Amino acid sequence: MTDVQARKTPQNRQANYALVIHGGAGTILKKHMTPEKEKAYQDALQQALQAGYDILSKGGTALDAVEAAVRVMEDSPLFNAGKGAVFTHEGINELDAAIMNGKTLAAGAIASVTTIKNPITAARAVMEKSEHVMMIGTGAERFAREKGLEIVDPQYFHTEERWNSLQRLLQQHSTKMELDHDSTRQMLDVKQPGNHDSKYGTVGAVALDINGDLASATSTGGMTNKKYGRVGDAALIGAGTYANNATCAISCTGWGEYFIRLVVAKSVSDLMEYKNYSVKKASDVLILDKVPELGGDGGLIAIDKNGNIAMPFNTEGMYRGYIKRDGKAVVKIYKE
Amino acid sequence: MTDVQARKTPQNRQANYALVIHGGAGTILKKHMTPEKEKAYQDALQQALQAGYDILSKGGTALDAVEAAVRVMEDSPLFNAGKGAVFTHEGINELDAAIMNGKTLAAGAIASVTTIKNPITAARAVMEKSEHVMMIGTGAERFAREKGLEIVDPQYFHTEERWNSLQRLLQQHSTKMELDHDSTRQMLDVKQPGNHDSKYGTVGAVALDINGDLASATSTGGMTNKKYGRVGDAALIGAGTYANNATCAISCTGWGEYFIRLVVAKSVSDLMEYKNYSVKKASDVLILDKVPELGGDGGLIAIDKNGNIAMPFNTEGMYRGYIKRDGKAVVKIYKE
Repeated sequence: MTDVQARKTPQNRQANYALVIHGGAGTILKKHMTPEKEKAYQDALQQALQAGYDILSKGGTALDAVEAAVRVMEDSPLFNAGKGAVFTHEGINELDAAIMNGKTLAAGAIASVTTIKNPITAARAVMEKSEHVMMIGTGAERFAREKGLEIVDPQYFHTEERWNSLQRLLQQHSTKMELDHDSTRQMLDVKQPGNHDSKYGTVGAVALDINGDLASATSTGGMTNKKYGRVGDAALIGAGTYANNATCAISCTGWGEYFIRLVVAKSVSDLMEYKNYSVKKASDVLILDKVPELGGDGGLIAIDKNGNIAMPFNTEGMYRGYIKRDGKAVVKIYKE
Repeated sequence: MTDVQARKTPQNRQANYALVIHGGAGTILKKHMTPEKEKAYQDALQQALQAGYDILSKGGTALDAVEAAVRVMEDSPLFNAGKGAVFTHEGINELDAAIMNGKTLAAGAIASVTTIKNPITAARAVMEKSEHVMMIGTGAERFAREKGLEIVDPQYFHTEERWNSLQRLLQQHSTKMELDHDSTRQMLDVKQPGNHDSKYGTVGAVALDINGDLASATSTGGMTNKKYGRVGDAALIGAGTYANNATCAISCTGWGEYFIRLVVAKSVSDLMEYKNYSVKKASDVLILDKVPELGGDGGLIAIDKNGNIAMPFNTEGMYRGYIKRDGKAVVKIYKE
């Protein structure tokens, strides 16, 4: 890092272009992994990093890079976004996504869509081809269709592993859910402790390009067994996704309700803008202090306008990685 | 105000309890008003203030007060929330609402519902009777029904005046809309300049109660002729609605897309928390500087933990008012 910083001069101040990605945080323990599964995740994360790097290294935009990286993870059944998304209580895959351009503060988001192959591309279409920031449900799907995006049968998103997760959860909690029906706190059912899906499978990417522009993107299938058209933080600008060239680009993953209540992504940006915190310090304040203090958990990735990155999480693990100018992809899963 | 501040002692530090409301900002000019219409708005705003004051003055909570005030405006056909909401492009009344408890940072929001008589009460049910923060569409409606909230036929929300507004707009812009179909900017169609409905009819309330707790609530029917399941800032925690006992409670009204991109409500709170700005200075920075700089317009109401209030707007007018401990309701419509 000091090597890169040493090269930083006014002439090439954007030489620190870089991409950071995450594939979800949660109860990710080495003892629960097979070598094959670990390798599969590492390969997929590397592939996502490479897709973004191919764009950044050729002078492409941060916006193109984060979209490309997220699309790779949406297309992989390993992550809870696009293909491989978890199922709602009703057995549907409902997808949310958001994208933001740090140069213009333009943003786009979609929620509760079930037929758009790549939700992140639909979010970008909302940002660039409509007057709106957020569209939901069948309205968002109609828009995506009109703009020529790839539409798939909802069955495309179905994976056996996620389907079995829902069935296990429905069996485990069928009695409990009934008993707790009027309880004001059903957090445990949402968080699913002990379930091997007890992780927040959102995927995301943040990038700084050669022009010094920042962008962020987040995509998710939400939480297994979610009900009532629940929307989490991923689709909400300021909560799970934010980007501002003046500060940083952020993508979050975690217990969405807490990230919404704290407006986590915008808070990181504001701590940098209003208190001159570094991207690392600002990110740590939210993920290591504020989110757990309120009772939530999760992580985030962030990159500032100088290419400094942060990847804090307060869970056992977070699928994550970064790639800088030198093209060396670094991928991590567990705590260090 | 100095009188009230002089009475402020440690023993009665929450004596400054107060309620502030808005009924939307926009092209509200005296020359377009009849005396009868002006009186009707003044009466409705006074009624909303009184409903909240009845609660606060008896030691009730800020949360109860903001919900009660917003319900009055939802039930009035004068405001674009609940009965009297504007119509979408498809001729439907789609309602959004959000509420937040500054003491706990608990929050609830619903979007795109069409059968819940009082959306703000549904948002509160999401906050208090579910594990989620945000629910949308038919899922949110099912939840509201299960919790025993009042469900109405969508026809209940229909008012002749709003219906005629949609028809006028559809006629005026039918050619233009076709021509602009692929345009990336259809802002003018959204903003509806020259249309007598060219205002942002969101309603909202913020309050400080005798215990020193803050709360905020916002409810809206969105924009006339909105398409594709568009969601604005009102339903988004941090954008149109935020409350934190450490800083202030905020409810916004305006061109929602800009309020989302700037995460206006949370930004006001962060300017107070991280830069020690007063509630007035923080509110002015957003409404008089940041929102217009980006190209948007609108206003907000805010109250801090000491009972100081702010009601800035950058449009011609904003339906607004406040009531403090003395019980004197102050209602305003135009610029001063």
